[in-house]
Order: sequence, then C-alpha cells, then structure tokens
Amino acid sequence: MKEPYSRERDSLHDMPLEEFRQAGYQLIDWIVEHFGHIDEVPVLPAVEPGEIKRMLPQEPPPEGEAMEKILGDIDRVILPGITHWNHPRFFAYFSITGSGPGILGELLSAALNVNGMLWKTSPAATELEQVVLDWFRQMLGLPKEFWGIIYDTASVSSLHAIAAAREQLKAYNVREKGLAGNKELPPLRLYTSEQAHSSIEKAAITLGIGLEGVRKIPVDAEFRMIPELLQKAIQEDRQAGWQPFCVVATVGTTSTTSIDPVPEIAQICRKEDLWLHVDAAYGGTAAVVPEMRQVLAGCEEADSLVVNPHKWLFVPIDLSAFYTRKPEVLKQAFSLVAEYLRTDADSQVENLMDYGIQLGRRFRALKLWFVLRYFGQDGIMKRIRYHLNLAKKLADWIDRHPNFRRMAPTPFSTICFRAEPPGVTDRETLNRFNETLLEKINARRKVFLSHTKLRGDYVIRVAIGNLRTSERHLEEAWELIQEKYTETLKEFSLAAGS
Amino acid sequence: MKEPYSRERDSLHDMPLEEFRQAGYQLIDWIVEHFGHIDEVPVLPAVEPGEIKRMLPQEPPPEGEAMEKILGDIDRVILPGITHWNHPRFFAYFSITGSGPGILGELLSAALNVNGMLWKTSPAATELEQVVLDWFRQMLGLPKEFWGIIYDTASVSSLHAIAAAREQLKAYNVREKGLAGNKELPPLRLYTSEQAHSSIEKAAITLGIGLEGVRKIPVDAEFRMIPELLQKAIQEDRQAGWQPFCVVATVGTTSTTSIDPVPEIAQICRKEDLWLHVDAAYGGTAAVVPEMRQVLAGCEEADSLVVNPHKWLFVPIDLSAFYTRKPEVLKQAFSLVAEYLRTDADSQVENLMDYGIQLGRRFRALKLWFVLRYFGQDGIMKRIRYHLNLAKKLADWIDRHPNFRRMAPTPFSTICFRAEPPGVTDRETLNRFNETLLEKINARRKVFLSHTKLRGDYVIRVAIGNLRTSERHLEEAWELIQEKYTETLKEFSLAAGS
Repeated sequence: MKEPYSRERDSLHDMPLEEFRQAGYQLIDWIVEHFGHIDEVPVLPAVEPGEIKRMLPQEPPPEGEAMEKILGDIDRVILPGITHWNHPRFFAYFSITGSGPGILGELLSAALNVNGMLWKTSPAATELEQVVLDWFRQMLGLPKEFWGIIYDTASVSSLHAIAAAREQLKAYNVREKGLAGNKELPPLRLYTSEQAHSSIEKAAITLGIGLEGVRKIPVDAEFRMIPELLQKAIQEDRQAGWQPFCVVATVGTTSTTSIDPVPEIAQICRKEDLWLHVDAAYGGTAAVVPEMRQVLAGCEEADSLVVNPHKWLFVPIDLSAFYTRKPEVLKQAFSLVAEYLRTDADSQVENLMDYGIQLGRRFRALKLWFVLRYFGQDGIMKRIRYHLNLAKKLADWIDRHPNFRRMAPTPFSTICFRAEPPGVTDRETLNRFNETLLEKINARRKVFLSHTKLRGDYVIRVAIGNLRTSERHLEEAWELIQEKYTETLKEFSLAAGS
Repeated sequence: MKEPYSRERDSLHDMPLEEFRQAGYQLIDWIVEHFGHIDEVPVLPAVEPGEIKRMLPQEPPPEGEAMEKILGDIDRVILPGITHWNHPRFFAYFSITGSGPGILGELLSAALNVNGMLWKTSPAATELEQVVLDWFRQMLGLPKEFWGIIYDTASVSSLHAIAAAREQLKAYNVREKGLAGNKELPPLRLYTSEQAHSSIEKAAITLGIGLEGVRKIPVDAEFRMIPELLQKAIQEDRQAGWQPFCVVATVGTTSTTSIDPVPEIAQICRKEDLWLHVDAAYGGTAAVVPEMRQVLAGCEEADSLVVNPHKWLFVPIDLSAFYTRKPEVLKQAFSLVAEYLRTDADSQVENLMDYGIQLGRRFRALKLWFVLRYFGQDGIMKRIRYHLNLAKKLADWIDRHPNFRRMAPTPFSTICFRAEPPGVTDRETLNRFNETLLEKINARRKVFLSHTKLRGDYVIRVAIGNLRTSERHLEEAWELIQEKYTETLKEFSLAAGS
C-alpha cells in the first residue's frame, strides 16, 4: 500500500498526515478545554479597536511556521478578541450554537472540500441536501410541494425569493431586459412590515428595486403587520402607477420576535397575485415542537420561506434553508449553463447551481445531517422546549418585578424589556437610563445582551438559544441586571424604593 | 473548577465533551486514513442518479443516534457519492485543495462559531480579516490603497463589484430609486469578454441590468478581449442611447485561463469613466510568484479585483478575497444599520456588514491565516511553481505527440488540448471523437478531466492545482489519455498510424 502523503514536510505537497493527526488532536483537545471552562471566560472581549491588529505582523510570514506555534496563537491573539457566540451567557441578537455534531460535520466538509455546483461534482452533496431539507420540511410541518435548497445566509435566501418574485413578472422579462430597459412598465413595489429585517431592504437595493420600492406596512400593538393596511397600500400603489410584486412576512422579527398574521397576508397575496415570501429565519425552527406548530400557520400558502438552522438548530454558521413551491421560477431566473459546466448526467438530475447566484456550493448539508441524526427529532424538541421554558421563566421574573417591564410579547425565546425606575415617566430619561443600564451590564463582560428601539423606546433584549445555557446562567444574568439597575439608579440619583 | 458540560449525554445541552473528544479523534483519524489511501480511491463515484438518496431514510430520525454510527455512515453513504475534489488526480474545472492547515482553520471557526457582522461581535474576526487580506495584497503586489474584504464566492465578489459600479452612477441614485423608477435615464451596459465567467451574467440578472445589458467583446486568437473592439462597442452604445458603466476583465478565464490585456482596458476605462473590475479568481494567485507577477499587470489601476484563495491557495471552500480602492461606494450602496445593530464602538471601527449583502459573516479569515502561516510565502511560491512546472510538462508531452494538439496557450496550470487522429479534419467528427475520448477517460474513474468548447471545437481540459498531485499522477493521466485514444480510434474505425 502506497502512502505518498505521510512523508516528512516537503516543499511541494500538503502537511504530512502524521503532523495533521497530531495537530488535529491538539485542536480537538483545545476545543474540549475551551468549552469545559467557557463558564469562566468573559463572554465579551476587553480589547480596544486596533489592539488585535497590533498583535499581528504587518507583513506576511516569509517562511512556513510550525502548526504548534500557530495553534498556540489562538490563545494569544485570537481569544482576546472573541465575542463568544458559543457561550452559555451569550444572550445578544439571536443566541446560536455551533454544537458538537455540527462542528464535526463542518470538519468533514472541509476535508472532502467538494463543490456541489453540479450533481456530477459530488452526487452525495446534491442528494444529501435534498434529503435533509426534506426531513427538516417534515419536521416543520410544511407541505410536500415545498422544494428546498441550502444558501449561506437568510440575506441571500430572501434575495433569491425576491428575485424569483421579480422574475415571475412576465411582462418585465427582467432576466433578459433588466429593469432600466423596461421604460413602458411601472416601477416595482414590495411590501414588508416596519419590523422586517434589514436584509429585505438590502435585497431591494441589490435587485434594482431601490429603497423607494419597499413600502413598510405599519404594525399593531404587538408589532405584527396590519393586513388591512397592507391591502390598502397595495390598492393605493396600483392607482399611483406602481407594480406591486411581492410581500415579505416575518415569523419572528428581529427586534421582538413578533409573528405577522400570515394567513391573512396569504389571502391578500392570492387575491392580488403577489409572491409571498416568509422570513422565518429565527422563529421557524420553533415549529419542530408540535405545540408551537401554529407559528407557521398560513406558511403552507407561501411561495417561499426561509428558516436558518444556523440560528436555532445548533448548526454552525452558515446554513440557511430555503423552501419554495416554485423552484422553476428560480431556475428560469438563474440557470446559465456554460459549456464547461455541461455533464452527461444533466438530463436526469438537479444541478443546484441552476437555482442561485453562487456557482460555488460547499457541502453544508453534512453538518445539518449530523445535527439532525445526533440529537434526533425528539432531542431537538426537548432542547427547543427548554429554551422556550427558560424564556418563560425570565419573562415571569420580569413581570413580577415592580421596576421592570416587558415591552413586547414573548412568543419564542427572546425577551424584550426595560427598567422603569419609580417616578420616571419621561421617555428621554427612561431611554438614557436603560442605555446606561445595558452598558453597565455588558461592561461586566459576564453576559452579553443587546438592545432595540420600539416606537422610540430603548429596550433591552435577552435572546436564549445556546445549547450550553442552563437555568443557572439565566439566574446569573437576572441577578446582574438587578445589580446594575441599582447602580444605574445611583448614577441617575434616583431612589431605590418603589 | 466547574465543568458543567462534561457530564453524560442529557436532553437539554450539547454533546458531552468527552464524547466530542472521542468523536473528534475518530474523525481526524478517518481523515488521515482517507488521505493516506486516496491514491487508490477512484476520483469519480460510480453511483446512478438517486442511488445515494435511496440509501437514506425518507423521514427524519425520531431519536438521537450514536456519533459512532453517524461517522460510520460516511463510508457507507457519503463516500460512494463523492467526486473527490481533494484528490491528486482531480484535474477538472479548476483543481483546488482543502489543505491540512486550512481544514484545521475551518474546524476552529466552526467551534468559535462567531458572526463577524460587527467589529463588536468579535473584534478578532474583523481585524484578522483586515490583516490577512493585507498580507495577501502584499503577496500579490497590489497597491496599498486596495482595501480588502472576504466574501463567500467569486460570484458574490463580482456581484458586489458590479453593484458598486452601478451605485457610482449618481444620476441614477439606484440605492433609493432602483432601476425601474428611473425612466428618464438610459439603460445600463457592462462589458466583458466572450470568455468571461457565467457569474458576470448572473450578477447582471440579479442587479436588474439584464442579459441585454451585458455586451460581450470578441477575443483574439489567444482568447483575450480585444481592446479596440471594447472601445468601439462603448462608442456605439453611447450613440445608441446606452449608459456604459462597468468593464469586467479576466485574468485566467475559465475555459483557457487566458489573460485579458488589462493595461489597455484600464486606459479605456479611465478615459470613459467606467468602473474596472478584474476577475482573477483563479489566475490571480499565480502573482505570488515573482516571475508570474506580470499576470496582474494593469490591475493596480482597477477599481476592484477578486482572487479566490479557495481556488489555488489551498484554503477550503469558501473564501473569496475582494479588493477595491473605493470601499466607500460599497458602503454607500449597502450600509443599512438597524437600531438593534448599533454598538458603542461604531464610530471608531469598520463594521464589515456595511460592505455587503450578507449580514451573517462567519470567521473565514482563520483558515487563510493558518494556510499563509503554515506554508509561508516561500512555501506557497514553491507549490505554485511546482504546479506551473507540472503544467509545462504536460504541455510539452502534448506538443511532442503527433496526434494531440494544444488548443490554447498555457499561461497558468491549466492545459487545453484535443486529439487529432490522422486524416480526420472534419470538425463534427473531431468533436465527437474528443467527446468520446473524454467519456472513456472519465469512465475509468481514475482521473477526472473536464472540457470546454473553443470556437466550436470540443476541447479537453487538464487543470492542475491540488497539493496532493505529483508528477507521477500526471504521468498516469497522460498514459490513460493515450490508452483511451487508441480505444477511441478503434471505436471510430480509424487507423492508429500517423
């Protein structure tokens, strides 16, 4: 048996295999050690801007270095500048997990290093992607007609959804003519709520719709799109010479995780013949739990939907699952088969490059496969339920405290609240108070919380979703919040009593 | 010391750490074993469409499974469907490498699982990205003003370049007004050669330019854009009411790796006030070798340029390095800062989410850092030179063989050739002959070559770029090519003698 790659380090080939094995073990051990003590590690780094940069040489290394030295620099150079997203007390933005099985899936994917652009360039990459996305579709209770594909991020998934909506406008013939050349046709408009994610507007910029082509529909007291106002906006726009073409509803908005009334919105889209895309990047995963299934009510009528397993399904970033009942529209928009990409299998298979902007497609399905199999449906449900229960606990602690108030409903595992010191009713002061409070909490570097603004009110967010988080971590966070509340009271020269 | 994560498998948290360690070692061992014997593994799989799918359950696993069983299924279910891009005899498309240090970098990135969207969400992710891209810039000999950012693929890098070119057209105000609303303004046109990559057209579709907005400039006998024809096309288009806005030149086209005359094209762009983007996704890396530096001649004048370290710099996919002298235009197009993304550091730092479509940004810089340090500039140069020399060898073998002919110059490590059996001059027959020859070669599954068409001629391509490839592998490929040539002669009832 030849083993041509196990030889000594040479100047022509890859790292010798025994060196790879040793370095691999060393890095696996490092990861185990890191997670084993992550509880004691500050979730936020203490570095100033430019500090990490200054620890690095300004010029590329002229000669190769030992892997041991490079791995040693993780502790010296990298860790001091890491905000630990994989930490039990990371409660900012949306809390995510790079889980054990997910990390191993990513390792395998890097080793195989296939580009799944065509079926032929690794049949397993295409077919495993089809199968695991269908598993996940079943877990979410979505209809059989929903065809799935993996993109990198929800930003890119939603971009593809809106591109498909645009492509569907036959009169425009956007693929061939573009938008600038279609002078007789009206400008395009898409609708989404005031609470929608910024990626929808970025997609509109990218696709040549422009920010003026995005009409934001007001929300109700619970931050949900108001369908009557959507209906009214569409009518107004048609009369004013716009061409409505797409509605983006959200299941789990970024600020408050509110859920747009998708059944009503779907009805309007059907009537008005508009593409309905649902951004369920965070919230969609909750539907794996039967008692939460209703968060996706109405989504069976959508034209497309995105859920991100790298958000709340324990898969390392990036992996965004995109579903549509109209893959042929995506293909019509994006299929461009250069001669050098033709294969003998093309007539019998699905080549996933035909459905998107990116030609390169790494083997992301592996890590989702590892995660779904390792935890199983049952294990995933238990973990999602646990996060939902933790959120209920914190919501309850806040509700029972006289000086804190929840600022939005908590349909998932993200809590929006603020402190309301006795006697302070002025918005400006309340905002400054809460901003200061959050700064003090995060400055301790023990927990990381983020914020948002709701109707002008500064609001603190606690997002729960990391697999390492236990009730104890939440208690620690709640204690710290109260401690820093007291400090902030002093700073604002306010009395503690209610 | 608390070790809350080392306990037994439970239903609420991640994989226990000791289990992770064992599975991690097992997977590292698997990778070592896999690479140790990859020479004996067929580079192409033998499966029929649907075969991998049929080996997988149709429904998601109800209960969790043991990691050992999951890892065992790599050999049973995944490998039979893998086209081995990380194989010494993979010569198709562009040959790439997921190298040892690159694989370890990806492993670390999955474990940390940070989202580098903001400086604050992991300062090291932003600053390491800035530093390693500047190292790589120096290695390529690009000017200091070139600012760098990592995107996933060259498709997305070029999309951003063309979006910036579009944004630069002040009169259009594309960000706000989109393209459909700009009725008084002429339609947009971008220029690229007939040999440009399909991603340029996909970007034009995406951005609302449309395929009609892409004018393909003819190439010379060596497949390079003809600057005089570019100049003429721009003039014609201006007269006909188009608005020229962007030229995409290529350094290393996909079919033949031809190099557009960038200095002349840059001059035209300057005169005509057009954004010049250079797609050097594959070819750019060669510039790390001093004697190849001239392949980027003229690129110092470009507005933007893309080189993919995941192509010929031994970094696992995906990692595309994008440089521009005008990052502010990208930011103007794409910066959209939702309240929940504001941080106290914003005024002092670069938040990389401001420069692109995707909000989520995984920590890709780590693997590039590992690769540059482990191999060093010197080690990278030696390896690139080795690939260039291997290509010269094969070119020489072909040139000396009476029945084979190179069909394009070989400026890098990719060779285009065809068989020309004695007495056969009819194009149709030559095409069928070479198509059959390639089918026979690949059917053996020992090497994987791909093809293209050049001016109607069917051409076989051999791309060299995997770190595991030695001269011996190339010899094996050349022997096989000749053996299958003889078989094809028989099939076509042609005589062997010349």
